Amino acid sequence: MSDYTQFETLIPVRPDDIDMNQHVHNSRYYDYVLAARYDQMERCYGMSMKAFIERGFSWFVRSAYIEHKRPLHLDDVAVVNTCIEEIQSRGAKVWFEIHKQSDNKIAAKGWIDYSMVSVETGRPQLIPDDIVEKYSI
Amino acid sequence: MSDYTQFETLIPVRPDDIDMNQHVHNSRYYDYVLAARYDQMERCYGMSMKAFIERGFSWFVRSAYIEHKRPLHLDDVAVVNTCIEEIQSRGAKVWFEIHKQSDNKIAAKGWIDYSMVSVETGRPQLIPDDIVEKYSI
Amino acid sequence: MSDYTQFETLIPVRPDDIDMNQHVHNSRYYDYVLAARYDQMERCYGMSMKAFIERGFSWFVRSAYIEHKRPLHLDDVAVVNTCIEEIQSRGAKVWFEIHKQSDNKIAAKGWIDYSMVSVETGRPQLIPDDIVEKYSI
Amino acid sequence: MSDYTQFETLIPVRPDDIDMNQHVHNSRYYDYVLAARYDQMERCYGMSMKAFIERGFSWFVRSAYIEHKRPLHLDDVAVVNTCIEEIQSRGAKVWFEIHKQSDNKIAAKGWIDYSMVSVETGRPQLIPDDIVEKYSI
Repeated sequence: MSDYTQFETLIPVRPDDIDMNQHVHNSRYYDYVLAARYDQMERCYGMSMKAFIERGFSWFVRSAYIEHKRPLHLDDVAVVNTCIEEIQSRGAKVWFEIHKQSDNKIAAKGWIDYSMVSVETGRPQLIPDDIVEKYSI
Repeated sequence: MSDYTQFETLIPVRPDDIDMNQHVHNSRYYDYVLAARYDQMERCYGMSMKAFIERGFSWFVRSAYIEHKRPLHLDDVAVVNTCIEEIQSRGAKVWFEIHKQSDNKIAAKGWIDYSMVSVETGRPQLIPDDIVEKYSI
Repeated sequence: MSDYTQFETLIPVRPDDIDMNQHVHNSRYYDYVLAARYDQMERCYGMSMKAFIERGFSWFVRSAYIEHKRPLHLDDVAVVNTCIEEIQSRGAKVWFEIHKQSDNKIAAKGWIDYSMVSVETGRPQLIPDDIVEKYSI
Repeated sequence: MSDYTQFETLIPVRPDDIDMNQHVHNSRYYDYVLAARYDQMERCYGMSMKAFIERGFSWFVRSAYIEHKRPLHLDDVAVVNTCIEEIQSRGAKVWFEIHKQSDNKIAAKGWIDYSMVSVETGRPQLIPDDIVEKYSI
């Protein structure tokens, strides 16, 4: 269990997300999590991706893990929950779980380990205290 | 001016829609129109894409035209309006216009000319009267 | 018939290009033409997209038209031919045709009308003489 | 070290793979691995994805892990190496590594754990002996 708050974002499946297997293409699950994080950064943590970039910071995916449980289909709405699992000096590990809105069953879950980098140099940066604080909810 | 009703669907821009030019990738505009049509087929015309496929029909894009006016950016919501411009014996021409929700300015407009085809043979089909009726609103 | 030279680029279909209809997703055809143009800008016209951007220029799609003739499938290789149809003071119209490599049949054809814009302001720019010359082959 | 043979596929980066960070979008790395596997299934293992589907089988991603080392950029060619790490009764674990062709440096590496499923039921299937044999190279 994480010490941090879990937030939720709804992502409607688009027809262009469906692949030849008639379900949401595997790699799009990461795009759903990404969309959820961008939404939650602005709406829940009070610091949008734009605000990060204006301060010269960006997030780089160091590693990621996903388990697929059940496919999402056309007309489904993905309910994406994420929460901080761990804040490190130069990064953060984010846990996620994707449910199908219609029956609340798990579609996929996993985590993404991000490094906070300088936009200019691409190198990992110490996360400033005020940002650590914003994320410590 | 079309004789048919215009319908509206909101499509939130996702981060994976943004390309190296920092705005929604050109080809994604078609995906927004496609998503709007799928939504409207079910919600407004009373015949979902699934219902078409169950009757052995699908839609094939014969030709398409688009004019780009202003780019859509991260955090924008695309307001996609579409309406039937013309119902033909074996197809339909659909007009579309995409606005930016924040300032109501036009992002893009154009049309898509669809052929109704048999799922099995891929060949154009006469549109049955009951479907013509559903679309004649 | 265009006065300008036609160039050719091979684009192998990737599994993630295939949509629920078991063929290349409609909007991906534009991505194939885009990939072909980037390749040809560098290889055939002697001025890569990077070189354009370094001079402060980029290309903005003003309008585009496409006709779909036959679908491309998994394992197909798209042969993308493009040529300049017209060079304008502030843009260029590019014609394209996409064949299937296996049987040489046309999959799609159309054109894209580009505006040359300033990266900084986004406004259309007069195309400098040396670039007009590079493109006049 | 795996007991099985490593195979290689070249995937040229397409402009539509580049995201707002000016490098290949994170989720596209999975699409590159997918494209490499499809190529290698046909070319190296002698059983194409089509052949699997004709026998009523498909592959479902159970879980996947990726480490990103260095970004791929426009004009890069991804060299995708994969090999079987383990053949299970109802699935296979595939290891992958993606290099940049220009300097041979690692861009990303990881693994994908696949379940072999029935196309009809979606349920995991025992892998028939002849397929185990094809994959045991």
